[in-house]
Amino acid sequence: MPVDPNADIEVVSLAAPPKFVWGYVRDFRVRWALEEAGLSYRTRLISAGEREEYFDEQPFGQVPAYREGDIAMFESGAIVMHIADKSDALMPRGAAARARAMSWAFAAMNSIEPVLMELLVIDLFAAGEEWTKLRRPGAVANVEKRLGQLEVALGDKHFLEDVFTAGDLLMASALRATDGRGVLEKFPKLAAYQGRCLARPAYSAAIAAQISDFEQSLADQGETV
Amino acid sequence: MPVDPNADIEVVSLAAPPKFVWGYVRDFRVRWALEEAGLSYRTRLISAGEREEYFDEQPFGQVPAYREGDIAMFESGAIVMHIADKSDALMPRGAAARARAMSWAFAAMNSIEPVLMELLVIDLFAAGEEWTKLRRPGAVANVEKRLGQLEVALGDKHFLEDVFTAGDLLMASALRATDGRGVLEKFPKLAAYQGRCLARPAYSAAIAAQISDFEQSLADQGETV
Repeated sequence: MPVDPNADIEVVSLAAPPKFVWGYVRDFRVRWALEEAGLSYRTRLISAGEREEYFDEQPFGQVPAYREGDIAMFESGAIVMHIADKSDALMPRGAAARARAMSWAFAAMNSIEPVLMELLVIDLFAAGEEWTKLRRPGAVANVEKRLGQLEVALGDKHFLEDVFTAGDLLMASALRATDGRGVLEKFPKLAAYQGRCLARPAYSAAIAAQISDFEQSLADQGETV
Repeated sequence: MPVDPNADIEVVSLAAPPKFVWGYVRDFRVRWALEEAGLSYRTRLISAGEREEYFDEQPFGQVPAYREGDIAMFESGAIVMHIADKSDALMPRGAAARARAMSWAFAAMNSIEPVLMELLVIDLFAAGEEWTKLRRPGAVANVEKRLGQLEVALGDKHFLEDVFTAGDLLMASALRATDGRGVLEKFPKLAAYQGRCLARPAYSAAIAAQISDFEQSLADQGETV
């Protein structure tokens, strides 16, 4: 269990966010990578009142951010790839394998996640707005095209390459933007692939650690969980 | 001038794409990085007829793809970061500087480009569709929020960090999704920053090399340029 208040590595997350985002706040990706790598970390949870000065650490005011000695990072994809450089569990050694993991990492963040997020905005954040009804079929078509291509690329492999890498961690994480809406289920091989990734003990440990932090931060505010 | 038919590195682009995308096809980012690093490359231009088998190299059928010995990559962001590992011109040595360049690279591809692409779809690819009129104000607000935050993070610096890095290359490239629509001009420091990036000789050389390839591929098809 790598959460340790004395660890060198610090991961920044939110203090007491609304419950519907618990398990989804993007520091879970960084926690997952650290669990895979067996690296301890401490957490710092920022509240709404601390948000203004936090922009100095993170240009968009978002979490996660990451500290490790004189290293200061942001963007979950970047942080995961930084951690991957430390551990064979996230990236096999050798330039060729590293290049593949990096390709899948950017594919997850630039070719897959944006189309999934457009549909998530339509279905959740902007639900009910008139434009979403008109746009939804096009957004669904974009999602299904990309997921179909990804499923072909996966083929019958267990992971996107021969072994699990940081590219799978980011891809399986990005695919969670479809949760509970019957989207991924149309691509059974892809759904099974994501299931294999999320069945890893490091993933469960990461989600549990995030929720534990959120529960504690709520309790610290004197509220009932 | 690093285009060399005998080079080890191969960059895949399109054969004779429509003229309105000349200078914008995403292999320009990879060419730019190779020019900055002083590395020679050859090009392979794929035609519509070759697209089907190309999916084996690139899961979404897009360009660029990249070969270098036993290394096979895709995603322009990933390829640029791979090249950056080879050259001080794209990434200062040391873990802390490398971590910053990686953070900005993912910020460009995951936090900036998706909001710009949504507006580009509205203004160009889906122009005239009913939903675009209703969605445009929201999409503009998202773009202006993110660009405003990016401008604050840039401050009075010449580049996002102390020196030009692969993170700037990808950010300046992503910002080109606003070209000709008066968007970036509302952020004068950011526009000046992008201007500094695009004024680099390596950028001009990359664009010229791409256009030269497209002209040649058109001529090979027996058409007049």
